Amino acid sequence: MSLTEKPEETPERQEFYARIDKHAMTPLWTVLSNIITPEPKSACQPHLWKYDAAKAFLLESGSLITAKEAERRVLILENPGMRGSSRITTSLYAGLQLVMPGEVAPAHRHSQSALRFVLDGAGAHTAVNGERTNMQFGDFVITPPGAWHDHGNTTDQPMIWLDGLDIPIVGFFDASFAEGYSDDEQLVSRKTGDSFARYGANMLPVDHQQDRLASPIFNYPYARSREALEVMKAQDEWDPCHGLKMRYVNPVDGGWAMPTISPFLQLLPKGFKTASYRSTDATVYVPTEGHGRSTIDGKVFAWGPKDIFVVPSWKWVSHEVDDEAVLFSYSDRVAQQKLGLFRDDRGNS
Amino acid sequence: MSLTEKPEETPERQEFYARIDKHAMTPLWTVLSNIITPEPKSACQPHLWKYDAAKAFLLESGSLITAKEAERRVLILENPGMRGSSRITTSLYAGLQLVMPGEVAPAHRHSQSALRFVLDGAGAHTAVNGERTNMQFGDFVITPPGAWHDHGNTTDQPMIWLDGLDIPIVGFFDASFAEGYSDDEQLVSRKTGDSFARYGANMLPVDHQQDRLASPIFNYPYARSREALEVMKAQDEWDPCHGLKMRYVNPVDGGWAMPTISPFLQLLPKGFKTASYRSTDATVYVPTEGHGRSTIDGKVFAWGPKDIFVVPSWKWVSHEVDDEAVLFSYSDRVAQQKLGLFRDDRGNS
Amino acid sequence: MSLTEKPEETPERQEFYARIDKHAMTPLWTVLSNIITPEPKSACQPHLWKYDAAKAFLLESGSLITAKEAERRVLILENPGMRGSSRITTSLYAGLQLVMPGEVAPAHRHSQSALRFVLDGAGAHTAVNGERTNMQFGDFVITPPGAWHDHGNTTDQPMIWLDGLDIPIVGFFDASFAEGYSDDEQLVSRKTGDSFARYGANMLPVDHQQDRLASPIFNYPYARSREALEVMKAQDEWDPCHGLKMRYVNPVDGGWAMPTISPFLQLLPKGFKTASYRSTDATVYVPTEGHGRSTIDGKVFAWGPKDIFVVPSWKWVSHEVDDEAVLFSYSDRVAQQKLGLFRDDRGNS
Amino acid sequence: MSLTEKPEETPERQEFYARIDKHAMTPLWTVLSNIITPEPKSACQPHLWKYDAAKAFLLESGSLITAKEAERRVLILENPGMRGSSRITTSLYAGLQLVMPGEVAPAHRHSQSALRFVLDGAGAHTAVNGERTNMQFGDFVITPPGAWHDHGNTTDQPMIWLDGLDIPIVGFFDASFAEGYSDDEQLVSRKTGDSFARYGANMLPVDHQQDRLASPIFNYPYARSREALEVMKAQDEWDPCHGLKMRYVNPVDGGWAMPTISPFLQLLPKGFKTASYRSTDATVYVPTEGHGRSTIDGKVFAWGPKDIFVVPSWKWVSHEVDDEAVLFSYSDRVAQQKLGLFRDDRGNS
Repeated sequence: MSLTEKPEETPERQEFYARIDKHAMTPLWTVLSNIITPEPKSACQPHLWKYDAAKAFLLESGSLITAKEAERRVLILENPGMRGSSRITTSLYAGLQLVMPGEVAPAHRHSQSALRFVLDGAGAHTAVNGERTNMQFGDFVITPPGAWHDHGNTTDQPMIWLDGLDIPIVGFFDASFAEGYSDDEQLVSRKTGDSFARYGANMLPVDHQQDRLASPIFNYPYARSREALEVMKAQDEWDPCHGLKMRYVNPVDGGWAMPTISPFLQLLPKGFKTASYRSTDATVYVPTEGHGRSTIDGKVFAWGPKDIFVVPSWKWVSHEVDDEAVLFSYSDRVAQQKLGLFRDDRGNS
Repeated sequence: MSLTEKPEETPERQEFYARIDKHAMTPLWTVLSNIITPEPKSACQPHLWKYDAAKAFLLESGSLITAKEAERRVLILENPGMRGSSRITTSLYAGLQLVMPGEVAPAHRHSQSALRFVLDGAGAHTAVNGERTNMQFGDFVITPPGAWHDHGNTTDQPMIWLDGLDIPIVGFFDASFAEGYSDDEQLVSRKTGDSFARYGANMLPVDHQQDRLASPIFNYPYARSREALEVMKAQDEWDPCHGLKMRYVNPVDGGWAMPTISPFLQLLPKGFKTASYRSTDATVYVPTEGHGRSTIDGKVFAWGPKDIFVVPSWKWVSHEVDDEAVLFSYSDRVAQQKLGLFRDDRGNS
Repeated sequence: MSLTEKPEETPERQEFYARIDKHAMTPLWTVLSNIITPEPKSACQPHLWKYDAAKAFLLESGSLITAKEAERRVLILENPGMRGSSRITTSLYAGLQLVMPGEVAPAHRHSQSALRFVLDGAGAHTAVNGERTNMQFGDFVITPPGAWHDHGNTTDQPMIWLDGLDIPIVGFFDASFAEGYSDDEQLVSRKTGDSFARYGANMLPVDHQQDRLASPIFNYPYARSREALEVMKAQDEWDPCHGLKMRYVNPVDGGWAMPTISPFLQLLPKGFKTASYRSTDATVYVPTEGHGRSTIDGKVFAWGPKDIFVVPSWKWVSHEVDDEAVLFSYSDRVAQQKLGLFRDDRGNS
Repeated sequence: MSLTEKPEETPERQEFYARIDKHAMTPLWTVLSNIITPEPKSACQPHLWKYDAAKAFLLESGSLITAKEAERRVLILENPGMRGSSRITTSLYAGLQLVMPGEVAPAHRHSQSALRFVLDGAGAHTAVNGERTNMQFGDFVITPPGAWHDHGNTTDQPMIWLDGLDIPIVGFFDASFAEGYSDDEQLVSRKTGDSFARYGANMLPVDHQQDRLASPIFNYPYARSREALEVMKAQDEWDPCHGLKMRYVNPVDGGWAMPTISPFLQLLPKGFKTASYRSTDATVYVPTEGHGRSTIDGKVFAWGPKDIFVVPSWKWVSHEVDDEAVLFSYSDRVAQQKLGLFRDDRGNS
């Protein structure tokens, strides 16, 4: 016998299973090999969504329902291996959100952590804790758990971003709380840029006490992150698996910017081909610049800017780029590290 | 519109949903109120298993299958609201394990963390990291993630304990690794009691470097924990909701003894009635002493020593005891706290 | 008898003291009230150094000795109450350093942590870990413990900065190590700005392992810090004792930028008068902008840009400014907090 | 020029030094090699105090002054290289305290942390936070900073213990606060053994919030620590420099039991000779069992139970024992580690 084989099913045993079943009991040995597996083995599949096609659907939805009626006008990117579960990986959610000119996505708050990664439009705003930030392409925006947040678009063009949330995690732990705000939009009480100045300039208020796990910075501007990559790349130090890969941090403790989701930004130089890598944190990728191909579990996915693709847990992945590429990505690594579950493998690199 | 209502389903919308469905996309607004709920809302139900009945089934299983053929001879306690999922709560597993005299539960290791809480028998052993511990009633034993472990019974009586594992958590994050050992039992290389002396006496080896998140103590003897409660109770300081409630700690950092499971031991004095309490960590209880009744979500469950009952997330619970009672319990609180999800409510206490 | 009085000295006792003295023993009761005092009670005095006068001496020293012959051409600012001890407070050192055009302050390293706060000149460089930074007025520069560092001035004007070091702390703990480098200047192997881009943009390299306690950012540019204060001040939230006071942080853990020295930058709006404040961390102040008066232990000290003044432990201090003022300051607060010694008192504010 | 040589003293320079001296300024280059040294270089000397001789003096003091008049009847063990400074190392204090039958050492509190290591007598008590502990030979007792504490002896024999305090550290940082209690003894409000049961049994109260840096356990009984060493030694794993060396920990965080002082207990098997070792934390040793010789900076010191000896910073030390020996020791390692100053060297081991 072993962890991987099942004992024989005899009539005597089956009769016993039927009897204990009435008492909310069931034999471990009939399911052991399914629930404690030798390797990660979920239904999560590698997949790529072309941005142009997705955007067309999203814009079409703009005429089908208003942001207000929908509460959030979002098309969920649902993993083909887990349809009907509103998940892109076993633990994470992804969706594309559209806010049309003049629209408001009403204020609410919930236990779920959310990231917004801006793909189209310029200048629509997200409000958190009484401050508004104007979102530009590539900005990484956080709406922390429990924080009132609303979105508005006072520009003349549609605004589209990728939403990344931990909805499955909060649901799994049965810890979801949510409520709507009294008005569509929260009161603006702080000047735009205040939180970034207060927490993002490598200084902190001398008596600052952090009251939540998420970063107090709620917009990490692409212009700044991209410029940092530009300076660093001069050093010509490339990780074989990752090129030049950074993680967004919470300035209060240097940890991850979010309590359950790990956001990354990485640069791959022109013509770079990475070594194979696998890890237990299934990851969602969104290139902001460049074109390339990623080989995931043996399948090749060609991508360009704004396409979205997902790499399941423990599947080998490698990237090959034509021109210089920059990729944003997110996973549940922070959660797995806190729980002692994260593992990775750099293959032959 | 709000977080709780769903927009109207028009034919035009349904036609659109059908079209995007082919592209692995689905509208958020049709599922939003199911996945981001105002309060915890799982299928987990309160339930109680009488130990005597469960023990009878367990002993019967002893003649149906050997520990070796079963790998582990365990009857899973499956939540009535989530049959078929091998869970007692949304995130945790519970089972009753039997090792007959002369039997061995073969050595293996896995990413899952396990606790053993001893209910019957005396002196059977668990081996971890080359050391054996002899288990007595009420002992709280840990087999840490990734550690080789095996069980053996060289006594003349059956050994029964409650297994608590994070199998659903590891599965959810798609991070399960497991392997069998070359032999039935691992080599014994350390003296019994070594790890307790090394880490449990409020001293640590001067250059100790912790290489895992779990406690290096793997047996917290009931005799010692119970004696501590006995000394403390003289102080007559009773928490209205919890009486005198302790958490087992990891001496290396003072945190929880396990990375994903929070173990507790609490004492309620004769005749004590607790105030109502609710929290997001669904909890499994096992009294070791005393008799009482717990009211969970309005239903009353009468219990005595060794009975096992479960309190779902965010359901009000209160306890009333006849004689002095001691309760062991475990939940996923440590995981929820690390992820920023834990919340509790002390009601009117 | 009490903590504050001394027992009577009898001949019999004195004879006993003399006898045990030969055995390296002495009675506690004759010194107790001197070594365990009711309140902080050092010889440290409040004092102010006018920058113009100090600068004149410093420039004169430029013709008396070269940076190379001096190893570092520095005039120590020595607390009037502790002359001969090379200290500005009981635990910290301060000095004014001059590097003339064409000069090099040769490379060396030591256990002592050093900060440089730039007061005059523009563009002279400090090199740390193979990277050079060009220093401008108000820049806060760190040379971490154990790191090779050298200074050079290839501009056409003298460069002057304030040095703040923990020399007394390292000496007190008897833990000083120092060595000279083989050449006058270390090899430059990293592009200017690399460390700031790598660690200062609210991102960190994904696999970064911190190997020391000091911040990996070694230049916190004044332009950036000042701009952050400018944005924040719009919020009109003034601490009665501190105005708007920030601490420089280590992005790796959100802690203080240095392991033994706490650096601060604060803004006081035009006409602001602070409430009285006292704390156990004696503090060295250097205004960068504005004019004002600080009342320290009842004595008034008028200051302008670049003047240096010191506030001893537990002496009441308040500031009053004419125009908008910005003050840089440093103390040993981080060390006191780690050791559990820090205490402060906000008086009647 | 270098870190170790001093520039020539010219009349012109000396005239300059004299002029700036009036302005509380002094040239660094004349003192640099004294204040930033290539290696630790204090006046601290190795020394040993024979317990019998010290005890005789201590008992004699019992007839010279009462505990109450003295506040504390203690003979300071003063380092021969630093007479008059009330220090046994550059940062730590040591003294031998006597409480005669019927005496009370009155209640007071101070910022200074104190450890008591019991050498003679049995059953005299120390009270902290309303709880009394009865002290036996070898017990390690903590009186935390800021905690009211008093000592009393209701036995019929004199009580003697070694006091270890951070008096020089608190004085150096100019952060001393102290006050006497209204009565000789504080009110006893908790049962003896309560804090040990509450915090020392590898469990913590479920909602415990630590309000200070020191361990909430205030007596680490020798019987228990010694028994742990006895179990561990069976493993026959000896560190070449330390034998079997443990550090007392704070159960709340697994860190050191005290915020500024590191306490150790180590066992050396019969006939063991250690390899040479040096570290920056000057250390005070007190053997509880066994006889041996320690070679410190080339000088040999023979010791038996209760003798006290000190090893200065960065001096080579090795131990050689005749019979099985147990040594208690303490140093400022915890402070140096927090400040990034600690360094050690295992020589050729």
